[in-house]
Amino acid sequence: VQSARQAQRLCILAEGAFEPESAKTGTGVIRYGHRAVVAVIDSEHAGQDITSIIGAGGGIPIVPDINAAFEYQPDALLIGIAPRGGRLPEEWRWQLRAAIAHGLAIINGLHVLLRDDPELVALARQHDVELWDVRVPSPDEAVATWAAHRPGSHTILFVGSDCSVGKMTAALELDRAAGDRGWSSAFVATGQTGIIIAGGGVPLDRVIGDFMPGAVERQVLAATASHDWVWVEGQGALGHPAYSPVTLALVHGARPDTMILVHKADRRFIRGYDLPVPPLPELIRMYEAAASWTAPARVSAVALNTFGSDEAEAHRLIGAARAATGLPADDPVRFGPERILDAVAAAVRTSGAVPQ
Amino acid sequence: VQSARQAQRLCILAEGAFEPESAKTGTGVIRYGHRAVVAVIDSEHAGQDITSIIGAGGGIPIVPDINAAFEYQPDALLIGIAPRGGRLPEEWRWQLRAAIAHGLAIINGLHVLLRDDPELVALARQHDVELWDVRVPSPDEAVATWAAHRPGSHTILFVGSDCSVGKMTAALELDRAAGDRGWSSAFVATGQTGIIIAGGGVPLDRVIGDFMPGAVERQVLAATASHDWVWVEGQGALGHPAYSPVTLALVHGARPDTMILVHKADRRFIRGYDLPVPPLPELIRMYEAAASWTAPARVSAVALNTFGSDEAEAHRLIGAARAATGLPADDPVRFGPERILDAVAAAVRTSGAVPQ
Repeated sequence: VQSARQAQRLCILAEGAFEPESAKTGTGVIRYGHRAVVAVIDSEHAGQDITSIIGAGGGIPIVPDINAAFEYQPDALLIGIAPRGGRLPEEWRWQLRAAIAHGLAIINGLHVLLRDDPELVALARQHDVELWDVRVPSPDEAVATWAAHRPGSHTILFVGSDCSVGKMTAALELDRAAGDRGWSSAFVATGQTGIIIAGGGVPLDRVIGDFMPGAVERQVLAATASHDWVWVEGQGALGHPAYSPVTLALVHGARPDTMILVHKADRRFIRGYDLPVPPLPELIRMYEAAASWTAPARVSAVALNTFGSDEAEAHRLIGAARAATGLPADDPVRFGPERILDAVAAAVRTSGAVPQ
Repeated sequence: VQSARQAQRLCILAEGAFEPESAKTGTGVIRYGHRAVVAVIDSEHAGQDITSIIGAGGGIPIVPDINAAFEYQPDALLIGIAPRGGRLPEEWRWQLRAAIAHGLAIINGLHVLLRDDPELVALARQHDVELWDVRVPSPDEAVATWAAHRPGSHTILFVGSDCSVGKMTAALELDRAAGDRGWSSAFVATGQTGIIIAGGGVPLDRVIGDFMPGAVERQVLAATASHDWVWVEGQGALGHPAYSPVTLALVHGARPDTMILVHKADRRFIRGYDLPVPPLPELIRMYEAAASWTAPARVSAVALNTFGSDEAEAHRLIGAARAATGLPADDPVRFGPERILDAVAAAVRTSGAVPQ
């Protein structure tokens, strides 16, 4: 069987949509994935320089269709964009059929499940390839046990001011920086893009309410058993009218030793709602209060997403975040994650845990 | 078709388990349901006086099996106990088969679903009766819209110190008392017992995390559109390591105008966890903080469950709760819901909403 989880040479299907905003999953996999991306499929951008589009991925060709991708010898096709409503566009079907017939596994992060598609299931069986529906949670659900983590391990949860502010990216940057220092480090994915990048995790937005903290706990217990620094991808925000329960499931299920607050500097309102984003000090109070209800944890740094501002403005915004919160703050993508990593290490040391 | 939701004469299957603790659903339906309970099936308690067992239900016969129940002309059989693990005990099957063959609809609150049972499904089709799996949520899920409620309506959410402290019972008592005053009052059920009693609601513990606040919102918007006083059944507790997300889904999804804190006076630790229950003033701060993240609401009364204490001790405990919180407090089951209803009405009036 051609495995999807173990595939090493991905091509990314992003037909008509390979742009930073709409190709969030593809961009994340290119930037942070451990597997090679050998081609991107998008007839509208075919032949263009990928770096000029997403600012990363130098050398990866953009090709017009799946047939053109085969020459780069992929072993899996990743559906790399999330169309409106999460459905599978009909005009893509032939490319999926061709990929399967060519022996490629399929990695699907859409809400629509390939396993419910009789034609593709039959074709995959015939060609002995795996269809991986990333958003299907593990069936063996359990309520949280509130178990303590391995002593000496450190769990860091990313919490945010809203959805789509950069929590996953910040977590991936910190995981990579910790690994670069030679620390034993792991990233715990809780959303479909993170799961595709990491090759595993929990699709928390598809888990039944009663089992959300338990699902997070299981991932974190496994990661802390084998790693010293565990960076947990956050979801939503405590002040989000629809997703706050998912966020609280992470705060209580992950039992973090410390938290990093992620905020997009120009986000004024909860996206899609007539609700203002609270000031940073208020957000910190909210998360520390929620943690204290089961196990106290402090916010130890602010990761500010300054995308869209020029560099001088970015420095000003970061300085303002430091002044408002009294905490170390930086943009870990733009200026590197080192300052935040130092802050987290110091916070963990202060709180009495064993430093690495 | 014999409808389960519209059945008017229930018999309750509680074989070997008709006791206050294990027959929580049956007891709730007998105490608060709008439908007649014509018989209880439990061979171990057959012939005994029901009032001596659960303190309610005077005149309802306890019979040894389903055949004996038929003489009281039930139109539905309610599976009235929740066995360990939620499974359907094999020794009950013949009674379910007999009930269906006799034309009774089945109301099932267990985790195991009758619709997954080919034998019972076929039998139900043959005899044209409905099998109602209460724990199956509505399939048309949606995220919360954070819509305002009808002006002049009042939404009251019951929040608690832990699971199983009396939130549903308090809500049912208040709904009944408001109705007795001639107010336009509705109870919004969020758990399987409440749903069976009310004939509808949302089984919140089976809803996917992303959709929990939306599912609550839909129920509350429907209730407030047609009723002035809407009492929302609470679930879990904000300090519960496994169920806190479900609780937050209610705090944010219900958008309450005010909250009633429910506590069992002798509950010292979160059941099943090594976590102390916070003092009442701390619980009030927790819930008011969580509400303030999206829409501020105060706790306006304490419903203290004094079950297990003698009357003098109950008065002492209620006085202590009043002193500790500065709020009206009472045991609405033991001493009636009037004081709490007055407190809620006063709170709603003070907050500027239209009094009834």
